[in-house]
Amino acid sequence: MSTELKVNSYFNDSVKSIALENQEGVSTVGVMSVGEYEFGTNQREYMTVVSGALTVKLPGETSWQTVTKGETFIVEANLSFSLKVTQTTAYFCRYE
Amino acid sequence: MSTELKVNSYFNDSVKSIALENQEGVSTVGVMSVGEYEFGTNQREYMTVVSGALTVKLPGETSWQTVTKGETFIVEANLSFSLKVTQTTAYFCRYE
Repeated sequence: MSTELKVNSYFNDSVKSIALENQEGVSTVGVMSVGEYEFGTNQREYMTVVSGALTVKLPGETSWQTVTKGETFIVEANLSFSLKVTQTTAYFCRYE
Repeated sequence: MSTELKVNSYFNDSVKSIALENQEGVSTVGVMSVGEYEFGTNQREYMTVVSGALTVKLPGETSWQTVTKGETFIVEANLSFSLKVTQTTAYFCRYE
């Protein structure tokens, strides 16, 4: 019997994700609705855009950069980052 | 207010997905637990492996092929295909 797939929901259901663990490691795949969000990390995170785009202000940065389909940004553990989402976006987040 | 993110569940919760619509079109992102599944299509589907691997028998084929991270297979509308999943796998499915 495979393990139960856990669905997480954040920011008043504006962000939802499904957790998984496989040969690549521990990760989530999810969707963000249009909006602005602040996330905090407990581990290093590799955030990849699967569809759409994420405009991110990385820790310690003052400028925003837009990450598009297939691109990845990395945030070290115990830091926070800000996101602006202007179209519904699917993402993949791998934890390390 | 952004639209509510819809979570779908199939095969006794072994497959879960989140629906989205954006500039790329209508799609879902989801996770499949280890197992064997048969899917039917209503529209053409572009199935991309985000993490893990999918072993697929495409419509009309007798052999199986394994599709890995970043690879896509296509199934035309109104057909069915079989999948063997040997590690928990995240996928992105775009409908056309």
